[in-house]
Amino acid sequence: MNIVVLGAGNLAWHLSEEFQKKGQNILQIYNRTEKKAEALSKILQCDFTSKLENINRNADLYILCISDKSIAEIANSLPIENNLVVHTSGAVHQDLIPQDRRGVFYPLQTFSKGKEIDFKGIPFCVEANHENDKKTLIKLAKTLSISVHEISSEQRKTLHLAAVFANNFSNYMYSISEEILSVDNISFDILKPLILETANKIIYHSPKESQTGPAIRDDQTSIDTHLNDLNNGNYYDIYKMLTEKLRAENKK
Amino acid sequence: MNIVVLGAGNLAWHLSEEFQKKGQNILQIYNRTEKKAEALSKILQCDFTSKLENINRNADLYILCISDKSIAEIANSLPIENNLVVHTSGAVHQDLIPQDRRGVFYPLQTFSKGKEIDFKGIPFCVEANHENDKKTLIKLAKTLSISVHEISSEQRKTLHLAAVFANNFSNYMYSISEEILSVDNISFDILKPLILETANKIIYHSPKESQTGPAIRDDQTSIDTHLNDLNNGNYYDIYKMLTEKLRAENKK
Repeated sequence: MNIVVLGAGNLAWHLSEEFQKKGQNILQIYNRTEKKAEALSKILQCDFTSKLENINRNADLYILCISDKSIAEIANSLPIENNLVVHTSGAVHQDLIPQDRRGVFYPLQTFSKGKEIDFKGIPFCVEANHENDKKTLIKLAKTLSISVHEISSEQRKTLHLAAVFANNFSNYMYSISEEILSVDNISFDILKPLILETANKIIYHSPKESQTGPAIRDDQTSIDTHLNDLNNGNYYDIYKMLTEKLRAENKK
Repeated sequence: MNIVVLGAGNLAWHLSEEFQKKGQNILQIYNRTEKKAEALSKILQCDFTSKLENINRNADLYILCISDKSIAEIANSLPIENNLVVHTSGAVHQDLIPQDRRGVFYPLQTFSKGKEIDFKGIPFCVEANHENDKKTLIKLAKTLSISVHEISSEQRKTLHLAAVFANNFSNYMYSISEEILSVDNISFDILKPLILETANKIIYHSPKESQTGPAIRDDQTSIDTHLNDLNNGNYYDIYKMLTEKLRAENKK
């Protein structure tokens, strides 16, 4: 397939390199900051541009790897009428793309700069306005991953909300624990095995069944000690609310 | 070493099997429910009892693998005067053990029934009332793990608080995401790669630096959509509070 990638952030890098590895033809990289477009295009040895009017108009697929809030604007400015345009966002409805041949190609994963990604297990959530385009996107996704799903915009909204808890908020819990340790000069390293084991458990055990801790044990002594140590600081409210919710759910 | 293990729960099973593998001699298992003591003793092919007065008095180490709230009571009832008695809890001060030769042998990990544990990487937090006993416990811990730490009761209190966030609360976030998906009939499997990647990231990146999501991007559209979808239900308050806290921290 001939592909134009719009964007030069983490996802654009990871995805376009992987496309190329799988034999796709990256025609061009677009980014409004020319240097960024150029940097990625050098890796891929393809064309680049920072001007939407210079977008190559002969691609089979235009894939938007850009921030949610820019999707509608960039898609509207794309000089593309009869080709397939997709975005890669978990949060944006496919209909924010004005082109008739539109869709979504959403890898449900977090991407970091410089961190190798194994695409094989990443769930790709695919959607399209036309049946043929959906087939094309599914086929493309299957070259990257064994986990390809047809997901409607409505379902994707639910997924994105769930992912905020599973990723953003769980990471925030790690961040808080690091902060708590740092006040007492204890290295965060000591918690890493626990964090990994807690995450790995969900592969075979429902997190609801695996839930442990003072709230579930109704261990008021530990809870009081912790609240006292948190000393009405920034994390006091969080500890209190999560403990109360966990207790209430446990009593149901 | 000759060891008496008190308790027959997850930790007692995992720890006594591992002790035995490393050449320690498990003299006896105690549990107030005789059947449970017997079940574990059969695996280990050692003695068992459900009566504290029948505890073998010739062990080098008495290790309490029991609930936090029973530690003081059981230790007080132990017919042991001159031998070393330790507990394995993250939350309990060593001085709740009345014996003069007392200490702590705390594996900072979550243990599940039937799930194999690789002890090598588990941080063991060791403390004792006498220097010689501390040396003994460190030596014993080093037979199990490469990660052995001298941790005071005060530091352990901080660790335990941090572990509540890192383990209990992050698991609760997984649990909430599973619940959110189930309402829309989406399998939790689709989130598993994201959860694993988020956890694995902390090995090389500080969670504070890795933080992503609508709160950090100041993406009010997504936040409003999510709050609307959560519809004042059980998780509405949690989403709202964590988002506000994340935003406030990000602006600091």
